[in-house]
Amino acid sequence: MNRPEALRKIAARLRIHSLRMTTTAGSGHPTTCLSMAEIAAALFFGEMRFNPGDPRDWGNDELVLSKGHAAPILWAAYAEAGILPASELPNLRKVDSVLEGHPTPRMPWVKAATGSLGQGLSVGAGMAAAMRLGKSPGRVFVVVGDGECAEGAVWEAANAAANLGLRNLCAVVDINRLGQSDPTMHGREASAYARKFRAFGWEAAAVDGHDIGALLEALARAGKAGRPTAVLAKTVKGKGVSFLEDRNGWHGRPLKADELERALAEIGPWPEVDPRRFLRSPRKAAPPALRTGTDFAGTEYRDKAATRQAYGNALAALGRVHEGVVALDGDVKNSTYAEKFFEAFPERSFQSYIAEQNMVGMAMGLAAKGRLPFLATFAAFLTRAHDQIRMAGYSLSNIKLCGSHVGVSIGEDGPSQMGLEDLAVFRSVPGCVVLYPSDAVSAEACVAEMARHEGMAYLRTTRPATPLLYGRGEAFPVGGSKTLRRSGADAAAVVGAGITVYEALKAHDLLRKEGISVRVIDAYSVQPLDAEGIVRAAAEAGGRVVVVEDHYPGGGLGEAVAAALSGRAEVRHLCVREFPRSGKPEELLDLYGLSARHIVRAVKAFSAG
Amino acid sequence: MNRPEALRKIAARLRIHSLRMTTTAGSGHPTTCLSMAEIAAALFFGEMRFNPGDPRDWGNDELVLSKGHAAPILWAAYAEAGILPASELPNLRKVDSVLEGHPTPRMPWVKAATGSLGQGLSVGAGMAAAMRLGKSPGRVFVVVGDGECAEGAVWEAANAAANLGLRNLCAVVDINRLGQSDPTMHGREASAYARKFRAFGWEAAAVDGHDIGALLEALARAGKAGRPTAVLAKTVKGKGVSFLEDRNGWHGRPLKADELERALAEIGPWPEVDPRRFLRSPRKAAPPALRTGTDFAGTEYRDKAATRQAYGNALAALGRVHEGVVALDGDVKNSTYAEKFFEAFPERSFQSYIAEQNMVGMAMGLAAKGRLPFLATFAAFLTRAHDQIRMAGYSLSNIKLCGSHVGVSIGEDGPSQMGLEDLAVFRSVPGCVVLYPSDAVSAEACVAEMARHEGMAYLRTTRPATPLLYGRGEAFPVGGSKTLRRSGADAAAVVGAGITVYEALKAHDLLRKEGISVRVIDAYSVQPLDAEGIVRAAAEAGGRVVVVEDHYPGGGLGEAVAAALSGRAEVRHLCVREFPRSGKPEELLDLYGLSARHIVRAVKAFSAG
Repeated sequence: MNRPEALRKIAARLRIHSLRMTTTAGSGHPTTCLSMAEIAAALFFGEMRFNPGDPRDWGNDELVLSKGHAAPILWAAYAEAGILPASELPNLRKVDSVLEGHPTPRMPWVKAATGSLGQGLSVGAGMAAAMRLGKSPGRVFVVVGDGECAEGAVWEAANAAANLGLRNLCAVVDINRLGQSDPTMHGREASAYARKFRAFGWEAAAVDGHDIGALLEALARAGKAGRPTAVLAKTVKGKGVSFLEDRNGWHGRPLKADELERALAEIGPWPEVDPRRFLRSPRKAAPPALRTGTDFAGTEYRDKAATRQAYGNALAALGRVHEGVVALDGDVKNSTYAEKFFEAFPERSFQSYIAEQNMVGMAMGLAAKGRLPFLATFAAFLTRAHDQIRMAGYSLSNIKLCGSHVGVSIGEDGPSQMGLEDLAVFRSVPGCVVLYPSDAVSAEACVAEMARHEGMAYLRTTRPATPLLYGRGEAFPVGGSKTLRRSGADAAAVVGAGITVYEALKAHDLLRKEGISVRVIDAYSVQPLDAEGIVRAAAEAGGRVVVVEDHYPGGGLGEAVAAALSGRAEVRHLCVREFPRSGKPEELLDLYGLSARHIVRAVKAFSAG
Repeated sequence: MNRPEALRKIAARLRIHSLRMTTTAGSGHPTTCLSMAEIAAALFFGEMRFNPGDPRDWGNDELVLSKGHAAPILWAAYAEAGILPASELPNLRKVDSVLEGHPTPRMPWVKAATGSLGQGLSVGAGMAAAMRLGKSPGRVFVVVGDGECAEGAVWEAANAAANLGLRNLCAVVDINRLGQSDPTMHGREASAYARKFRAFGWEAAAVDGHDIGALLEALARAGKAGRPTAVLAKTVKGKGVSFLEDRNGWHGRPLKADELERALAEIGPWPEVDPRRFLRSPRKAAPPALRTGTDFAGTEYRDKAATRQAYGNALAALGRVHEGVVALDGDVKNSTYAEKFFEAFPERSFQSYIAEQNMVGMAMGLAAKGRLPFLATFAAFLTRAHDQIRMAGYSLSNIKLCGSHVGVSIGEDGPSQMGLEDLAVFRSVPGCVVLYPSDAVSAEACVAEMARHEGMAYLRTTRPATPLLYGRGEAFPVGGSKTLRRSGADAAAVVGAGITVYEALKAHDLLRKEGISVRVIDAYSVQPLDAEGIVRAAAEAGGRVVVVEDHYPGGGLGEAVAAALSGRAEVRHLCVREFPRSGKPEELLDLYGLSARHIVRAVKAFSAG
């Protein structure tokens, strides 16, 4: 049997699997699987080279299913390739199966969770960049839905991939004309997509997405022009089943038992073919041997310094001991100080321009292929990538993010530039480590902690320079806190982090003049919080706690502390409670109730109230 | 003096203002103002028609400064137009001035805050759509930076504007070659931008952005082809000052006093011209007389129904009594049930396809021109627009958002589709009303409350159908809560919202069998929370509170309750604390600790612990 003939049979088997699986599950998206049956067959058993025994083989081609709702056909292709037993397929969407409704890395061949649309191309670009960096002969294929091409993130990725010249990246767009609730904007007009991809610097070719020969030819040609390539595959949603083909209203609907029977009858008998005979082995390749380490000599600070500067210094120092570290910037590296790394390691540095979604997506791809990405921009602009951050969580991505210019303490630039919700964003990712250092020494230590932590970690840095509080070499373990002032008779505990630690210290001194002692705690580890330490401090300080933070109330340090204390102390929460404005940093800290005098007042109110 | 000659003088004055203002402020972005001096002059005193006495004149052309860091030249243009006294300009960035570092609607001519890049074109598209809908003769001009064209949101907006045929929308791209930390991807290659805009269905023309005549000609031609138009203006950053021109490293740096002197000497003496003579009056036009109202007859529900269905029913009913209501969908209207409105009012419905950022941005623009936009998608996908949501807050936008399919209770589709951080997102917008109804009756009442509330409001809806708890006509005021079960001897208060209210009721019944009474509270108003009611309930229930919510811990209902109680009660917080997986809704509610038996256990643990 020749390959095209076999692939046609395999495509039919993938259709049968997809229909059966979704009917058994009682939910799922069969019609979007049917439109890409030939695409899946041509990729897995025609063009791609991979070792079915090892998802980490450095020679493997990679596949990202950006249109994640087509998960059933991905699982079916894995089964046909011998990666998982076909007997697993009926477990689709069951609570104890890795065959989830949308792909997640619970199935180890999936290197990034998909299902929030428009993200796969960025992940693929990151993988392709890592593979080029590590001299893998493999290529990256991303199956993109036509509907998701409306997502701007797709064009951020297209832009970046062309700019980086990622000829080892190939997008296959499944142009099946129908979205979930409506036809897509361009219908089956492949030329509309071709125009866009070409304008963004890609090679683009339109093909009949149900013609195995045409697909194989286009895939083989991909990258030959030295550019990333988009194969624009015109398909029919529901292809192969007359009553599903090209019909609106079937998105996300499995067939009922009798419908399934009719559909299977139309597709015909189970096609006899041995798909594994058509797998193509990868070229032999070993991943790069990278020296790794996280112990670096911290910078010797003599005077005040901004934590953002410390981030830059630490990142460059980390880069010297850990060759896997790569850095990404959203065109603000002179503000985040990521430029220190960019200057030292240009070949490991990625200018992502003003495209935060793609920056996070590419970091996911780089991490999936073994790199240790650190990305930085203004914390406010990380909200732009909240969906990617969320999906990086589900992808168990080992990525490190730094958000600078947090809070009203940035001053005159005004609210659009102030990160005031970033703690809520990152605290909403289970297991994400959130660190918020107050001085340069602790900031450098936090960068080392982030590198050591396996999984997502976030560092919150401050714009203004702050005095040194700690000595070089002091440890700042994840989950810890520092008690900066204490006495045997503290009237309250003041918990701060970052810039507010200094206001807490000033308040301490002001109160001491009046004979009132307060404990001052630097809660640099916002997640996990040092709940035990804070509960103990609260108890020792008469059950009175003031939390002061340069952040909105929702989801910040104050609510984390209130939740941890849960009734064991009264908590007064000083934070930004209205839309701030432009002004000098000190003016704004005072105007929005975060300055020392407000802390003093809050402490005194305990005795009054 | 002819117009071009006058405009050249005005451009010089705008340069002088921008340089002086930023030096006086000691911060700001002078060079990005200098590159667009001719653009600003040509727009404000050449092409645009507006009534300087009334920012709400329905005949006005509108200007959105998407590259918001050029705020000084916007303020300067307003001063030259007589909108504000020139004596105000030295107050740039002062804490008591409306002349903020980036534009906000504290200055009433600014209809949407900018400064987070890549958002202005969506806002402009929304305004243009509203103006076309309301038969305004005005046009919308959006000044876009070249750097921000890397943002995918720009291409979402371009896509939408072309699809809607918004010929009254014109983007002027200031191609000044330099970003903040690096040259942009395309340098001054205007043709690269032209290719992209044309591929996205726009008319595009490249001009010398310092040639007043060329700019005027291009602006006058804009829209004539029946399509939105991009004027690609090749400019020089820092234009007019030799030591600033085209130099990297000057972004966001004001001149020192001596540098300012040298710069002003180069620009020459203060040009004599009366800019107001060159203002062009708008064509007379009255805004559409729209019948408004928020009292609609709710649907009569007999059986269980999903709150998302109630959203659709209520929105359609609201549309009948309020002609200003418009609806936007991200191609999931058959899931959010926004389709009910789309079917009833196609001319007031906007299919935004899978482009959530542009959906929110367009809603901002529609609201800025007097419409009352309701947009809906899966709550998880609203994270995609978190930055736009944040900026809508700063824009004081009167937009209403609905996030459906929240929590693990969606079931088999898996984590990528579950909204588990949306409460944190919307609680981080000061003043944003956050409503989370449990049954169809309360959901409809909440839609009416959202319409009545002036400002941003968010509705959280649930996928599965839920039984009716309330009678038609019951009031659900913002800031309220409902006590569903109470006794004189409650052992604890269980606070839930949405799907968990039903688990709380089941727990109540299970506990009653064991002789334990608990209070059950439906906290449908998550923000503002009924803090007083919950504090009272906690006190009456022995200071023991269980909060149960289908959301991550960070920034959700539990932390809001913990913060409100602040030491007055012990709080046990049942919520989703790990990455969930695919499974049946009931299985997942139980697996992640939200089901009745977990509530029972938490209540019993109080007495044990």
